[in-house]
Amino acid sequence: MEQETTSSQPVVRPQNEDEDGGGNSQLTQQFGERIKHLRISVSLSQEELSFRSGLHRNYISDVERGRRNISLKALDKLAKGLGIALRDLF
Amino acid sequence: MEQETTSSQPVVRPQNEDEDGGGNSQLTQQFGERIKHLRISVSLSQEELSFRSGLHRNYISDVERGRRNISLKALDKLAKGLGIALRDLF
Repeated sequence: MEQETTSSQPVVRPQNEDEDGGGNSQLTQQFGERIKHLRISVSLSQEELSFRSGLHRNYISDVERGRRNISLKALDKLAKGLGIALRDLF
Repeated sequence: MEQETTSSQPVVRPQNEDEDGGGNSQLTQQFGERIKHLRISVSLSQEELSFRSGLHRNYISDVERGRRNISLKALDKLAKGLGIALRDLF
């Protein structure tokens, strides 16, 4: 039987959104890579994209690492910050 | 000084997701109308889309009424349920 380790492995979960859990899935990771690719392709730093989108720099970093199950409103801000249409985020 | 009314005006807020607040914005309402349009165009009821997407029927109803700030993972389920690509949700 495996014993649960509650002290040595702190569980840091991203906040859950909707009914679908947090980040860290193949979907969020692929999306994060896509966002990073798009950001770099328009020569923006995370800080610059943060400023343009109104999203926190740490939040953008989390998204790019697939650690956020980003919401529609944040997607919209991200698209505006990148200067592209929502559908072109995908 | 304004006095806060805590009893006569119950505040019913949608659950917040990410750092962007809940539903009920122009964005979520336009998106909801789009989803409804897409669902009807493939002749699915909310119940059928619920079954195909794995999202609760009430949740789909909320999304179509613009009352949810839907997350990436739920968007993915919705797209799969509709049989279209994620980008074609927009």
